[in-house]
Amino acid sequence: MASPADALNAELVKQTEIFNKLRIENSNPAALEESRKRLGEIKRDLAALKPGGKDAKKRERLLLKTPKGTRDYGPGEMFCRDYVERIVKECFVLYGGAQLDTPVFERKDILAGKYGEDAKLIFDLEDQGGEQLALRYDHTVPLARYLAMGGANNTQSKLWQVGKVYRRDNPVMSKGRMREFSQADFDISGQWDPMIPDAELLSLLCTILTRLEVGEFTIKINHRKILDGIFEVCGVPPEKIRPISSAVDKLDKLPWSEVKKEMTEEKGLDPTTADKIGEYVKHKVGSRPLLDRLLADTSLTANVKAKQGLDEINILFTFLDAYKITDRVSFDLSLARGLDYYTGLIYEAIVEASAPPGFNAVEGLDPAPPTPAAAPKKKSKKGGPDEDEEIDESQVGVGSIAAGGRYDDLVGMFAAAASGDGKKAVGLPCVGVSIGLDRIFALLWPKWVERGMRSKEVFAYVLSAGGGLLPERMGLVQELRAQGIAADFLAKNKPKLNAQFAAGERDEVPYAIILGGDELNAGLVTVKEQRWEFVDGKKTKIESADKGTQVQRAELVQWLKTTTTFKDWSSGRLIQQ
Amino acid sequence: MASPADALNAELVKQTEIFNKLRIENSNPAALEESRKRLGEIKRDLAALKPGGKDAKKRERLLLKTPKGTRDYGPGEMFCRDYVERIVKECFVLYGGAQLDTPVFERKDILAGKYGEDAKLIFDLEDQGGEQLALRYDHTVPLARYLAMGGANNTQSKLWQVGKVYRRDNPVMSKGRMREFSQADFDISGQWDPMIPDAELLSLLCTILTRLEVGEFTIKINHRKILDGIFEVCGVPPEKIRPISSAVDKLDKLPWSEVKKEMTEEKGLDPTTADKIGEYVKHKVGSRPLLDRLLADTSLTANVKAKQGLDEINILFTFLDAYKITDRVSFDLSLARGLDYYTGLIYEAIVEASAPPGFNAVEGLDPAPPTPAAAPKKKSKKGGPDEDEEIDESQVGVGSIAAGGRYDDLVGMFAAAASGDGKKAVGLPCVGVSIGLDRIFALLWPKWVERGMRSKEVFAYVLSAGGGLLPERMGLVQELRAQGIAADFLAKNKPKLNAQFAAGERDEVPYAIILGGDELNAGLVTVKEQRWEFVDGKKTKIESADKGTQVQRAELVQWLKTTTTFKDWSSGRLIQQ
Repeated sequence: MASPADALNAELVKQTEIFNKLRIENSNPAALEESRKRLGEIKRDLAALKPGGKDAKKRERLLLKTPKGTRDYGPGEMFCRDYVERIVKECFVLYGGAQLDTPVFERKDILAGKYGEDAKLIFDLEDQGGEQLALRYDHTVPLARYLAMGGANNTQSKLWQVGKVYRRDNPVMSKGRMREFSQADFDISGQWDPMIPDAELLSLLCTILTRLEVGEFTIKINHRKILDGIFEVCGVPPEKIRPISSAVDKLDKLPWSEVKKEMTEEKGLDPTTADKIGEYVKHKVGSRPLLDRLLADTSLTANVKAKQGLDEINILFTFLDAYKITDRVSFDLSLARGLDYYTGLIYEAIVEASAPPGFNAVEGLDPAPPTPAAAPKKKSKKGGPDEDEEIDESQVGVGSIAAGGRYDDLVGMFAAAASGDGKKAVGLPCVGVSIGLDRIFALLWPKWVERGMRSKEVFAYVLSAGGGLLPERMGLVQELRAQGIAADFLAKNKPKLNAQFAAGERDEVPYAIILGGDELNAGLVTVKEQRWEFVDGKKTKIESADKGTQVQRAELVQWLKTTTTFKDWSSGRLIQQ
Repeated sequence: MASPADALNAELVKQTEIFNKLRIENSNPAALEESRKRLGEIKRDLAALKPGGKDAKKRERLLLKTPKGTRDYGPGEMFCRDYVERIVKECFVLYGGAQLDTPVFERKDILAGKYGEDAKLIFDLEDQGGEQLALRYDHTVPLARYLAMGGANNTQSKLWQVGKVYRRDNPVMSKGRMREFSQADFDISGQWDPMIPDAELLSLLCTILTRLEVGEFTIKINHRKILDGIFEVCGVPPEKIRPISSAVDKLDKLPWSEVKKEMTEEKGLDPTTADKIGEYVKHKVGSRPLLDRLLADTSLTANVKAKQGLDEINILFTFLDAYKITDRVSFDLSLARGLDYYTGLIYEAIVEASAPPGFNAVEGLDPAPPTPAAAPKKKSKKGGPDEDEEIDESQVGVGSIAAGGRYDDLVGMFAAAASGDGKKAVGLPCVGVSIGLDRIFALLWPKWVERGMRSKEVFAYVLSAGGGLLPERMGLVQELRAQGIAADFLAKNKPKLNAQFAAGERDEVPYAIILGGDELNAGLVTVKEQRWEFVDGKKTKIESADKGTQVQRAELVQWLKTTTTFKDWSSGRLIQQ
């Protein structure tokens, strides 16, 4: 294969010819200029590659790494991630969902105006002549775009999506806070009776988190209309409602004094108004008793929005009983959610293990004044031209592992903007939940490592006891695979028996099938079961005096399927215990 | 939810405050300028939004579409795509593979110099202060980067990846030629005996295409060393070998006369040399007899590279016999593959249905002079500011559905470039195959539509015969789902029975479970099986006089699991027949 210099030299020859041809043909000036530019680039790159070239050192050495905030996942990790994804997808199907897939990038104007203060985190694509594009920030906006375009007949639907989304945020890799991360979304669209779809989603979320065994979890709920009602009652001017709402949302990480400071100093809110808000959101967590207290607050219930929100929470509570998930849900007035598009119920799931240090997720007490979690320490730079610093991972919790809410106006807003006549288009109420798969992976992975999980599913390793027997080994693995038995062999002509055993053991293959020339002639093969034990984080093969079992070659497949713990790979992926 | 104008107004208030604060504090000029710029942008956006604003018409109206060359996949299509992906993944596991996942974008210098003439198709991300990034063009280069970084211990491995890749090419949507498309790759790395891993991959490819029932297919094979040997023997100068190779690769779409023209006029090759090449690549297709003819060509076997390539093909043929796939493989001297990084065996799978019109894929005759496939007609523009035209979809075949080859130097090249000292780093031989999932989907989807496949897997629909019974319906679906039975109900308080039946029928749910107040009190529910027939592309419910079966509520789950054709969704996804 050509070296970079060889490739550039070949390109130089080609481009020079093109350039000369264009010049001879008196081609149009733009094309000629384009060609001249390209030639210049190639020459510059070649010069930079030369050991004596200007900037040679800097440009010559390739930095072998993934982009900031992204990472590779190897076999062991993918085995765990695949397991998480499969459980989530199975639950989506159990709840009557159908799958949707949208492109990883969108036209930029589709994403504009949807994410409030976080819009600065959107990844843009370079304008290479054509559309202005950006990587998707979540699955919600693409779904709303799909529905507004008439997808799923733009009516009642239960749709789910699993895929990666992108945010130019400061990564905290070990806790699953990445610039590229996986989200699994489930959304219900359509005109339904109040809070029924919302309750379905809370039930779905409980089922998923329970089946994934993430540990004790709580789903915090609140209602945008209650929050907006509170803000109105306290006297927040309309244009400041969303910014003040963003400030309230930080109460799970900052003490009230800091949040108040942001409201007054940064966002120009009157301190008296801020204090009134504080009266509501400081005594914030509860269930029915909190709801009853708020329903008895006549200044609040006089506000139309607040009353509507409180009534809906009231209905929701009865549904939670029917779904038997009341004890998982906590009504929390300090939950606000950053995104602009929510209009009703909002929620966020947190697990004990994911709460920032010093913060009790279940009781939701005000945290102590600035903890390390609130103001994470910067790690000192080390090696490599990484342009900005990453946050010290040990100082931050995993955070919420799932969140969502109702967004009744987003689809209608797309339809109205597309019609362009300023008329209000017919909307489509929606409610959805996003599950942060990387955060769940970050919680589960240490347990998988602890349990010493395999990263491959090979069931049978085919060995030759002498003489190579390569065509015989190839023929047998081919036969096993055709029968749904994952099989492998060592890709050498005449491998030593020890080397073959070692290769099978590296993948912890449970059955070794040994071929011998004489035995094969007699129509026989030897099957040997292999077992491992996992003690103190170390996996060791259990040595056994067992020489294996002789099986008729013709009956081998049947024998493996009936005598062993075989699982058929051709009828759906299964997880080992 | 806030309208775009409301959101902008709120942002204006906030940014004005920030700007004033910066000015009062005598902040540094750069920050002040940044803030002033942001304010200007917001004001411009607001002005544009106003009905009377300059450019108001143009900017106000949102174009609701996916980016060029991309599309959404709805429930029915995803059901089919998911099926394809699952078959492919199961085969990857059967062949001893382990999963890898890499980021969707890479640092741009990782991709540079790997794709020859096609490098212009790379999607770049905007430089937003930080790294220069680009969307991945394939899975091979990211895999090589992963291995060079020491992934999978940088040694013997069988790794697979499934995911989307990106190319700024001219899309032909209906044939599965997209700018965003899904590829499934399987790669084997490590020092092995010649052609064993290569044969494994050809066998894997045959297994996958057979199980997916894509129709009759052929795998064309060739060897880069034979091609390079032919070029050397014919007298092609070293720096022109890759460009001339690219020209040869077009022989499946263009007649020899056109290819020769590209070699001589565009790429400056001596016409006599071109004719010599023609003698080899025109009589191009065959199996052992072709190999024997080439092995008897002493001027060719005197070339070290050509001899090495021919010997390897010879070994491969014996392995194909052991794998019983000889009749699937065709030795084709005109196959060259565009990518720079191949060093040995190369291959490409084509199906009858995917060959361009007028081209016989199996016999590989020279195509007739410029067919519509070779020079696709442009479709006339219609509505919308789509910046360039798409190719008329009816004029082009699906093309190859899988391809790959050996790339022994790519990992070593990364390692050498990263060490930066110019020394040759230790390499890692690799061979891989990429399967074009969109092209396979384009082949299978019409058959799915023909067969009237469902797009949802709901098994039981829970209805109320009167009085709403909402908590009872919620409780029952919850119980069914907990038992692995996909279930749903109508999200209304007191729905009419007809409306509920209609909703269940829309999703073709096979079992209706009807709740009645009195019946429930007696501990009973009614189960009614529902069937559909599919005639002449139309699906209709078979009306039946059957009133259903009364079942004990307490025994319902057991009854459903034993009496019906139930499939458990909690133990792996299954496909309906």
